Amino acid sequence: MKYELPYYAVIFSSLRNKEDGYQEMALEMLKLAEQQPGFLGVESVRGQDGFGITVSYWSSLEAIDRWKAHPSHVIAQELGKEKWYEEYGIRVCRVERQSFFG
Amino acid sequence: MKYELPYYAVIFSSLRNKEDGYQEMALEMLKLAEQQPGFLGVESVRGQDGFGITVSYWSSLEAIDRWKAHPSHVIAQELGKEKWYEEYGIRVCRVERQSFFG
Repeated sequence: MKYELPYYAVIFSSLRNKEDGYQEMALEMLKLAEQQPGFLGVESVRGQDGFGITVSYWSSLEAIDRWKAHPSHVIAQELGKEKWYEEYGIRVCRVERQSFFG
Repeated sequence: MKYELPYYAVIFSSLRNKEDGYQEMALEMLKLAEQQPGFLGVESVRGQDGFGITVSYWSSLEAIDRWKAHPSHVIAQELGKEKWYEEYGIRVCRVERQSFFG
């Protein structure tokens, strides 16, 4: 997915456990994120070992802050820490350059 | 993996085919990248559908440019386009903020 510079990427790297309910919540959050102002797109992959990377793309830092503070997302974040994630890292990045093939 | 700000992330999102030789080259490139000045670390995951995300972390844009221009890496890039990748995107990003759990 190609977007016009400048924009921002949120890299979410996480290690999941096997507890139930994650898929439903993840899908709900994805649908909700897509409706937020400034949301550009998302790429996500998880391996069989439970490690996954999700990168979401946003038009501005303000859009990222609003999504972080969205009430439903705040609840999902808390549940994530309580139930589903062994560990995670979040990095908010400004995309400086990009190139594509294919 | 936690690194001190500021630093840079290269997000490599790719769709692979099933052709042989990829794993060997990927491992060789990983070993070589780890030896480069300015390399901080890497996170990588690929799903069974062939879509994968690799994020490598670097201390500077100059370190990223040097790695991009490394002769062995240049050969690997060409082989990647000829043989292994259906499509890919590369985004060079400046990490602005980060947080970690667990």
